[in-house]
Amino acid sequence: MANFDTSGSFRTHRFQRRPVRADDVQVRIDFSGVCHSDIHTAHGDWGPQHYPLVTGHEMAGVVTAVGSQVSRFKVGDRVGVGTYVDSCRTCEECRAGREQYCLNFALFTYGNPLPEYADAADYPGGYPLGGYSTGIVVRDKYVYPIPKAIDLKHAGPLMCAGVTVWSPLRNWGVGRGSRVAILGVGGLGHLAIQLAGALGAEVVAFTTSAGKAGDIRRFGASDVVVNSDPDQTAKYTRHFDFILDTISATHPLDPYVRLLKRGATLCRVGIDNTTLANEFGAFSLTAAQNSLAGSNVGSVRETHEVLAFCAQHGIRPQVEVVPARQVGAVWPKVVDKAARYRFVLDMSDLR
Amino acid sequence: MANFDTSGSFRTHRFQRRPVRADDVQVRIDFSGVCHSDIHTAHGDWGPQHYPLVTGHEMAGVVTAVGSQVSRFKVGDRVGVGTYVDSCRTCEECRAGREQYCLNFALFTYGNPLPEYADAADYPGGYPLGGYSTGIVVRDKYVYPIPKAIDLKHAGPLMCAGVTVWSPLRNWGVGRGSRVAILGVGGLGHLAIQLAGALGAEVVAFTTSAGKAGDIRRFGASDVVVNSDPDQTAKYTRHFDFILDTISATHPLDPYVRLLKRGATLCRVGIDNTTLANEFGAFSLTAAQNSLAGSNVGSVRETHEVLAFCAQHGIRPQVEVVPARQVGAVWPKVVDKAARYRFVLDMSDLR
Repeated sequence: MANFDTSGSFRTHRFQRRPVRADDVQVRIDFSGVCHSDIHTAHGDWGPQHYPLVTGHEMAGVVTAVGSQVSRFKVGDRVGVGTYVDSCRTCEECRAGREQYCLNFALFTYGNPLPEYADAADYPGGYPLGGYSTGIVVRDKYVYPIPKAIDLKHAGPLMCAGVTVWSPLRNWGVGRGSRVAILGVGGLGHLAIQLAGALGAEVVAFTTSAGKAGDIRRFGASDVVVNSDPDQTAKYTRHFDFILDTISATHPLDPYVRLLKRGATLCRVGIDNTTLANEFGAFSLTAAQNSLAGSNVGSVRETHEVLAFCAQHGIRPQVEVVPARQVGAVWPKVVDKAARYRFVLDMSDLR
Repeated sequence: MANFDTSGSFRTHRFQRRPVRADDVQVRIDFSGVCHSDIHTAHGDWGPQHYPLVTGHEMAGVVTAVGSQVSRFKVGDRVGVGTYVDSCRTCEECRAGREQYCLNFALFTYGNPLPEYADAADYPGGYPLGGYSTGIVVRDKYVYPIPKAIDLKHAGPLMCAGVTVWSPLRNWGVGRGSRVAILGVGGLGHLAIQLAGALGAEVVAFTTSAGKAGDIRRFGASDVVVNSDPDQTAKYTRHFDFILDTISATHPLDPYVRLLKRGATLCRVGIDNTTLANEFGAFSLTAAQNSLAGSNVGSVRETHEVLAFCAQHGIRPQVEVVPARQVGAVWPKVVDKAARYRFVLDMSDLR
C-alpha cells in the first residue's frame, strides 16, 4: 500500500524487489505494524519525500529464499525486519554494534536518501520502500529470527516500538530497584511499561487519557498520573532514576525534569510531528545536574535481545489486526490516539 | 560593597556578621572574585532581591576566630569560602556529599531565600550577604583550607569558577585520552581548559574573541575555533567525548550537539542573563543518543579536590586585582567580555 502524495491516502503499487544477492534474505511479509513515524514521513512532516512512498518498518513473516552465503536462515523460518535494512558495517559505530548510529548513516527502511555506500540499483526507483508490502529482500544481518513463543502478529511492533524503548532502558541502566517514569502510553509507552517492569523497576505512567488507566495497571505500572495533575506530579519530585518520554508531540519538559533525581536523565524517543524545537528553562538542568537525552530505535544486538526478553517474560504488544487495504482508515485513528495500542496490518489481504 | 537597587551601582554598607557559634569560623576576607552571577543577581535577572545586597562568592582570606568545637581550623589559617555557606546535612544528597544539590536547598552565599533549616537571626537583615565584604562567619564544614602553593589572590576564583567546571569534568569522566570541547573562554572556560588538559584530555576551545587565541593555547588547548567558523567546526563532527558549555548567554545548542560522539553529553554551566528557554531541535539528540546536561557549582569534596589539583598541577586563574571600591567600574567590563580572565577585588581597600 503506497502513498502517492502527502494526503495520507493509499493506492496499491506494484513493484519488484531486487533479485536475491548472496547475502540476502527474501521475506514474505505476513504482518506489518503501523508506526506514527509512517504517518509523519508520508505527510512530509520531516522533509520532502519520493512518491510513491511505501512506509512500514515493523515486519514479521516467513523466509521464502536465501542467498548462497546465508547460513543463519533457511526457507520457512519466521523472521522480522525493522527500521533499517543496512548500514556501512565499517565505521566505529557499526563495528561497536550500534548500527543505528552508523557514522555513514543507517539505511532506514523507507523514506531517506540512500547513503553513499548503498547502490541505487538495489532499490526499485532508487530509494528504499518499506513494509506495507507483501515481501522484502534484506541483507541477512538486518533480519531477525522470531522466537517460537511470539506470534508473528505480535512480532512486528517489537522491531520498532519495542526496541526503541528497550535501547534507552538498557543504556541508562534500568534494573531492579530503579524508579522509572514512562511519559505517554501509546505503541511505545505500553511496551516500555511492561519492559521496565520486567527489568525490575517501579514504573509510574503519565498519560493524557484517563481511560487508559486500567490497561496501564495491567501492563504493570504501580501508579498512573493523568494529565500531569500537579498534586499527583508533585509527590514524585526528585523521585525517578530515569524518565522515558514517548510523547510524539512538542510538550513542556521542565515539569518532568523536576521529577528526576540528582544526576538522572529524561530521554525522548517520541519525535514531534514537526521539527519544532524543544525547550528547557535556564535553570532546569543545573538544579540537580540532570540531562535531557534522545535515543533512536536500537541496534541489531538490542533487537535480538528484546525479542528474547519478550519471549522469556511473556511481554507482547497489545495489537489490533486489520486487513492491509484498510490502512487508510487506520492512520487517522493513530493520530487521534485511538490505537489500543498498536495497529498491525494483515498483509495477506494484498495477496 | 553593596547594591541598593538593580542599577549595578555600589555604596558601602556597614553590617555585623553573627557572633561566632561553636562550629563557626570567622574569616577576614582579603580577596573576593567577581563572578558574572553577581551581576545577574544584582540586576534582578534571576528574580527580585533584597537590598542592600552584597554579592561575591569567591572569597579568600585568613581565619580570625574559631568556635569552641572547631578543630580543623585555627586563627591565622589561609582559607576560602565559596558559593554556599550551609546545607541541611541530613538529606540523601548531603549525606552522599553533594551538598550543592541538597534536597532542602543549599544556602547559597547571597541572594536566595533562607531554607527552612536556617535561622534568620544568623543573617543580618534575615538574609545572607556575600563576599564583597571585609569578613564573614561560616559553619566550618563550608570553609576550605587553601594549599600553601596557591596565593590568596588566586584562590577565590577556584571557589566558584574552578569547582563549577571541575565538578562536571569529573562527573562525566574526563581523563586521559578524552576529547573535550570548552565553549566560551571567560572566568570558567579558561580554568576548564587548564583542568581538562591536566586531566589528560585533548582540549579544543570555542570562542567569539579571536584575540584570546594566544592565551587559549597557553592555557593548553590544542586548537581554537573562533566564532564557530563552519569549516573549522565541521571537522569536529562526532569528535568529542564531552562538551563543557560555559557561555553565559542563550545561544544555539544544536551546532555543538553535532560535535558529540554517539552517547556523549554537552553540559551547560553558564547560565543565561535571563530565564529564557534553551532550545534543541526535534532530531538533535536522537541522531546519536546524545544528552544535554546542566551542572551547578561543586560539592564540598570537589572543592577540596580542585584546590589540591590546582596546587599540584600549577593551575591558576589569570586574574586582575583591583581595589574593592572600584567594583562599580569592573562590572561593565565583565559584561563586555573584557575580563582577562577574572577580576579579583582587593578587600583591604575597605579596611
